[in-house]
Amino acid sequence: MSERIRFRFAVNVMPKPGILDPQGRAVEGSLVHLGVEGVSEIRVGRRVELAVEAASEAGARATVERLAGELLANPLIEVFAIELLGAVAPASVGTASAAPASAGG
Amino acid sequence: MSERIRFRFAVNVMPKPGILDPQGRAVEGSLVHLGVEGVSEIRVGRRVELAVEAASEAGARATVERLAGELLANPLIEVFAIELLGAVAPASVGTASAAPASAGG
Repeated sequence: MSERIRFRFAVNVMPKPGILDPQGRAVEGSLVHLGVEGVSEIRVGRRVELAVEAASEAGARATVERLAGELLANPLIEVFAIELLGAVAPASVGTASAAPASAGG
Repeated sequence: MSERIRFRFAVNVMPKPGILDPQGRAVEGSLVHLGVEGVSEIRVGRRVELAVEAASEAGARATVERLAGELLANPLIEVFAIELLGAVAPASVGTASAAPASAGG
C-alpha cells in the first residue's frame, strides 16, 4: 500500500509580457483617485490554489503542470508559475481542510 | 537627495474560507473531462504584480498595503497576501522594465 500525501500548490497565471492587460490599465487609472504615486507596471492575473493527493511531490507536481497547461492558463497569451505551498502527512489529512489557507491578509 | 529604489511586489487576493467560489467549482467540474484525479479544494483568486518606487522597503510596502486594502481586494469577502518579488537599484532601473516578470512558466 503506497502512502498518499496531500500537497498544496498555487498556480500563478499572468498575462505574457507584451500582451495587452486591460485590468492592469484599469487599476492604474484608479491610482490617481486614490492619490497613490510611484506605482507602475501593474499586471493583473489569476491565482489558483489547490490540493493534490499523490504518492510523491514529483507526481503531484506533474498533475498540477498538466492542469495549469491545459485548463488554468492559455499558453498563447499567459505564462504560469507553480508554487508548492506545503505538504500534509496522511495521518493529519483529515484535519488539514479545517485549517485556513496560507493566503491570509 | 534621497535615493529611490524600485521594488516589485505581488498581491495575492483569494476568496475568504467559507465564501462561495464559483470559478473554483467550475474548474473542479472540468477535472472529470480531463481525467484528472486526486485534486480538490480548488480556489480561484487574483494575482496583481506591480512596481513601486520608494526610498525604503517599508515605504513601498505601505503603499502596496493601502492599494491592496482599498482597491485590489474586497475585505468583506477576500483576503490578500503581499509578496516581495525583488528590488532594483536606481542605476539599473532603466533596464529593469526590459526584463520579463519572474512569473515565467
